[in-house]
Amino acid sequence: MKSNPNSVEELYTGVVENNKVILSQAITLIESTLPEDMIKGEKLLEKCLPHTGDSIRIGITGVPGSGKSTFIETLGEIITNDYKLAVLAIDPSSKKTKGSILGDKTRMKNIAINPNAFIRPSPSGKILGGVAAKTREVLLLCEAAGYKCIIVETVGVGQSETSVYEMVDFFLLLMLSGAGDELQGIKKGILEMADLIAINKADGDNKEKSKLTKTQINQVLHFFPESDSGIDRQVHLCSALLNTGIKEIWDEVRSHHRKTKKSGFYDNLRSDQQLLWMEEYIDRFLSSSFYEHNLVANKLEDIRQQVKNGHMSPQKGARMLINS
Amino acid sequence: MKSNPNSVEELYTGVVENNKVILSQAITLIESTLPEDMIKGEKLLEKCLPHTGDSIRIGITGVPGSGKSTFIETLGEIITNDYKLAVLAIDPSSKKTKGSILGDKTRMKNIAINPNAFIRPSPSGKILGGVAAKTREVLLLCEAAGYKCIIVETVGVGQSETSVYEMVDFFLLLMLSGAGDELQGIKKGILEMADLIAINKADGDNKEKSKLTKTQINQVLHFFPESDSGIDRQVHLCSALLNTGIKEIWDEVRSHHRKTKKSGFYDNLRSDQQLLWMEEYIDRFLSSSFYEHNLVANKLEDIRQQVKNGHMSPQKGARMLINS
Repeated sequence: MKSNPNSVEELYTGVVENNKVILSQAITLIESTLPEDMIKGEKLLEKCLPHTGDSIRIGITGVPGSGKSTFIETLGEIITNDYKLAVLAIDPSSKKTKGSILGDKTRMKNIAINPNAFIRPSPSGKILGGVAAKTREVLLLCEAAGYKCIIVETVGVGQSETSVYEMVDFFLLLMLSGAGDELQGIKKGILEMADLIAINKADGDNKEKSKLTKTQINQVLHFFPESDSGIDRQVHLCSALLNTGIKEIWDEVRSHHRKTKKSGFYDNLRSDQQLLWMEEYIDRFLSSSFYEHNLVANKLEDIRQQVKNGHMSPQKGARMLINS
Repeated sequence: MKSNPNSVEELYTGVVENNKVILSQAITLIESTLPEDMIKGEKLLEKCLPHTGDSIRIGITGVPGSGKSTFIETLGEIITNDYKLAVLAIDPSSKKTKGSILGDKTRMKNIAINPNAFIRPSPSGKILGGVAAKTREVLLLCEAAGYKCIIVETVGVGQSETSVYEMVDFFLLLMLSGAGDELQGIKKGILEMADLIAINKADGDNKEKSKLTKTQINQVLHFFPESDSGIDRQVHLCSALLNTGIKEIWDEVRSHHRKTKKSGFYDNLRSDQQLLWMEEYIDRFLSSSFYEHNLVANKLEDIRQQVKNGHMSPQKGARMLINS
């Protein structure tokens, strides 16, 4: 990989003027692991910081087969009438595939060519600080470039939902009609995170079944603790294919935004998230400097085996590694 | 605090002979933060390790007002017909009250005087490695002393449920009849952790309402991912006060134990938990050595404020602290 030839000043100007080519280069810089790029990237981010923050950040995840790409395309079209929209994907498993860029570009054709929209897939390869940390930095660059609505979607089967939840204001879960087996795809804790549950493909023969699912989910929600914002969770029916119910979902997001702005929840959440990001960054640094240290790495597998077999207590194993 | 006068050998013999006085002293040693005690404690634990592991570990939590103490007393009486039972409490907030010892002793009178049972509240004060880490070590000492059933209960309003879940084989949630507001006391993710949900106080006028709640919870469970063990979650009605339905719950725990032993889940879970404990111990060590370092501690508050206000990016804040 070659270091970026542009100066921080040039990149900054390009970003805040929303030059998409420069924005893409700036993102590549942020994702780079070259030491000189990392220093430049941090400077760029600091310069951009005053232009960030005033936005609506939406996290979107879905059970398998729920039609997430089509949903984001349809919702995205509506959003771009009000705001410039950036769509970011977060996929901790992307280092395995490395082919996600092409995949994402063809997956959401309309957003890719919409002048008011910008789409960026997960970085591939090994990233210092993790894919989630980089996605947060990319999100800030996009905000500095004037994208006032950011969709962060989870891709693949990664455990990325919690990371996404921690970087957005509004979390949307896409589901399908039908209970039981079909819904076993929901991962632990996801339903409770959702501010809005959209039952997609509620069209044709599926419509009645979807209504029933809506009723059932509403019953389930009674057994959940209140959402963090204090605003009741919503269940909506929609069809991304026929573009029904999607506008109502966007209205709901905006209403949630207004309410949380007014109550102060929005500002508190953003502050808390900033701190959380910093702590995560530190944790990750501490953990990687520890486990990647030669003396630790050499002993690790042997000690892990002994602890696993019950031949050594976890605290002794920990202490032996720490003493290295 | 005075260091324990007994040798590791004396303590070890006393523990494996189930001398309750020595066991209590050994636990106090394990909880001690004096450097010489910590070295002794680790040696003691290593010696005890071969006597641990072959046990049933049950985590119990409950919504406020669900009658957890009475439930554990009644269940405990039944368990002691089959096994020697230790009841441990985990309460990360106990450092605030410091009075939990007396509280617990009077709270479960029958268990306290039962010769086949042993009760130990959360340690109070500041504990290196955290209350959860110490509870796990105490659990191992109790197993070495021949307690083949261990109940770990959550106390107070701490965020201790996940810690308990990670140290047990079977997680039991105590609830009450009635949906809606009454159930808002359930914390996030708890319902999904449960292997068995017991609706307590299902007696008298409350019985019909409890049956309805059971039906509702069974419906809710359809929307949850499969339990880690692959065994269906159970919902039971019981009355700890009248001692109805409690024996059936104990039978369920034993059946779960047999099934997971047979499937190999039990052994895998225990191995994974050992590794998890080691990793948590390391994480906690890294994090406390970092944040308690003078140069970090001095700058921390100022940097936190700047990050919180959005005047500094989280990564810059992290890097400034790391560079200290």
